[in-house]
Amino acid sequence: MNNWEPGRIGIIGSGSWATALAKIVMEREERINWYFRFGETVRQFRRSQHNPTYLTTQLFDTERIDFFTDIPSIVEASDTLILVTPSPYIKGILEKAKKGSLQGKFVLNAIKGIIPDDYVVISDYLRDSLGVPDEQIGVISGPTHAEEVALNRLSYLTLACSDVRRAEQLSKVFQSDYTFCKVSSDVTGIELGSVLKNIYAIASGVCQSLRMGDNFQAVLISNATKEMARFLARASSAERNINDSVYLGDLLVTGYSRYSRNRTLGTLIGKGYSVKQAQAEMEMTAEGYYGAKCINELNKKYKVDLPIAEAVYDLLYNKEKAKDTFRNLSLKLT
Amino acid sequence: MNNWEPGRIGIIGSGSWATALAKIVMEREERINWYFRFGETVRQFRRSQHNPTYLTTQLFDTERIDFFTDIPSIVEASDTLILVTPSPYIKGILEKAKKGSLQGKFVLNAIKGIIPDDYVVISDYLRDSLGVPDEQIGVISGPTHAEEVALNRLSYLTLACSDVRRAEQLSKVFQSDYTFCKVSSDVTGIELGSVLKNIYAIASGVCQSLRMGDNFQAVLISNATKEMARFLARASSAERNINDSVYLGDLLVTGYSRYSRNRTLGTLIGKGYSVKQAQAEMEMTAEGYYGAKCINELNKKYKVDLPIAEAVYDLLYNKEKAKDTFRNLSLKLT
Repeated sequence: MNNWEPGRIGIIGSGSWATALAKIVMEREERINWYFRFGETVRQFRRSQHNPTYLTTQLFDTERIDFFTDIPSIVEASDTLILVTPSPYIKGILEKAKKGSLQGKFVLNAIKGIIPDDYVVISDYLRDSLGVPDEQIGVISGPTHAEEVALNRLSYLTLACSDVRRAEQLSKVFQSDYTFCKVSSDVTGIELGSVLKNIYAIASGVCQSLRMGDNFQAVLISNATKEMARFLARASSAERNINDSVYLGDLLVTGYSRYSRNRTLGTLIGKGYSVKQAQAEMEMTAEGYYGAKCINELNKKYKVDLPIAEAVYDLLYNKEKAKDTFRNLSLKLT
Repeated sequence: MNNWEPGRIGIIGSGSWATALAKIVMEREERINWYFRFGETVRQFRRSQHNPTYLTTQLFDTERIDFFTDIPSIVEASDTLILVTPSPYIKGILEKAKKGSLQGKFVLNAIKGIIPDDYVVISDYLRDSLGVPDEQIGVISGPTHAEEVALNRLSYLTLACSDVRRAEQLSKVFQSDYTFCKVSSDVTGIELGSVLKNIYAIASGVCQSLRMGDNFQAVLISNATKEMARFLARASSAERNINDSVYLGDLLVTGYSRYSRNRTLGTLIGKGYSVKQAQAEMEMTAEGYYGAKCINELNKKYKVDLPIAEAVYDLLYNKEKAKDTFRNLSLKLT
């Protein structure tokens, strides 16, 4: 497998991060496959030369894009599939693929979330439920607002696969004038790190609503990195430096961003909204909502000390009051 | 020395952080000593019951404050001295103390900077130039905007001394309803961490001026933590977790704050101001300006890989262009 090549790239997803990844990949690849749910979206895209809904200022040469609106066809036409939908949709989408059709495909997870209800990270689902072998599963992550990729601002990605040579081959596809892509073998750690940082972004939002201040916010994030390090060390034996940009950097960009959906959920909870009210207020459920439950489930086995993730879980699922919960949390931070 | 007590506290400094520390100490201590340079400031303070220049909304019971306007007297009247002036003044102030008068005193450094020109941290200066023994030298630090202390918002301090039992005794003085104070033995590491975070705050400001974006900012800070960890490991053998709030938290609160003087210096440099122009624009020289030179000097011996600190040094002392320097820097980050 020394001469493995990523081959034809197929993107499954049509949001802003999917669009940013398509832009990056097309800097290097002559042609890509791209899945959209609706034919009408594809027609509008072709007409306007941009995604009609997300990153609309980013123009594409649609002559170089093969659009697909059904999953079996894009799976068949692609050698490497990038999964980049909201996490609640990915299970249904993958169920549409023909049985066995992922055989021989490389599947790269770009979703920063888990399979809701199942409470497993995407790579576990791919391996355990769909039979994709580990060396054909990768994850790509990093501190990357899609909007900044659209503006050609420098971004640093990390691509992980248990087979690091494959990660190296595939990482070339994501290197451009404005993107660096390093490699790692820590698939599970990176996936769980993304789940955790969404939870910590919710905590950040709560802390903002409660006007706890910048001093507390900095302490919260410092403690969050240590909490993340503890949890990942327990969940996976891969080597990592928690201060690498794919862990700490991604936590920072989400925790300090006013545009994060997770942070917004936190600010609403902090203001006293119920989870239902907050969800009604927001267009889409924040990934951290599922993430908090997932980590809580996993931690029944791991039993790691996770005061921040537990506080967020209690706010979201046990209807605790933000002020009381964060006062208690403050006693556990250092 | 098991029964060591901090005794009477004397504060040397009158800025906003000095005022915040006085507030914290007075939550617990019945009386404090407090040094001001000018008698007129003291008269105004007594009249208005607040520091006339800094944190002016914070009222004090001046009946419980013994004001001093000369150094030998406050040194004589105090058992524990808190140094909390801008770093350029501290050497001159300490030279006013009578020779040998610091004998038996505990000296707690709350200055986040070095002795300019000498390029040594304050604890080294106290020990090597003034003969204060290690067990009578401490440092107090943490992510603490003074303005938030004035608002009773939760803050987390760390107090270090090579004699951790003394650190524990003295830490009690800084515990209140809105402050936690943990202890450490890493005096040099905490001092150098403060110097470095000021340099990284300058880098943050440059990055903001160059509109490099939130993705890059997060990568910059992630790399800064690793750089800090490398440098501190080389400079001192004390054990530390770089993600503790006194290191990472303080870096975050400065690096992400719009109110940091160091960050402002960086934004001006990033806009193309010369250092002289930037200093003229700002009321006072940012600590990071001296810090960058200090770290550069120290690193001639240590030879640690410090791409960010070196980039800032080159901007401040070698008149390099921000855009070129940061483009080169971006290739060294991961």
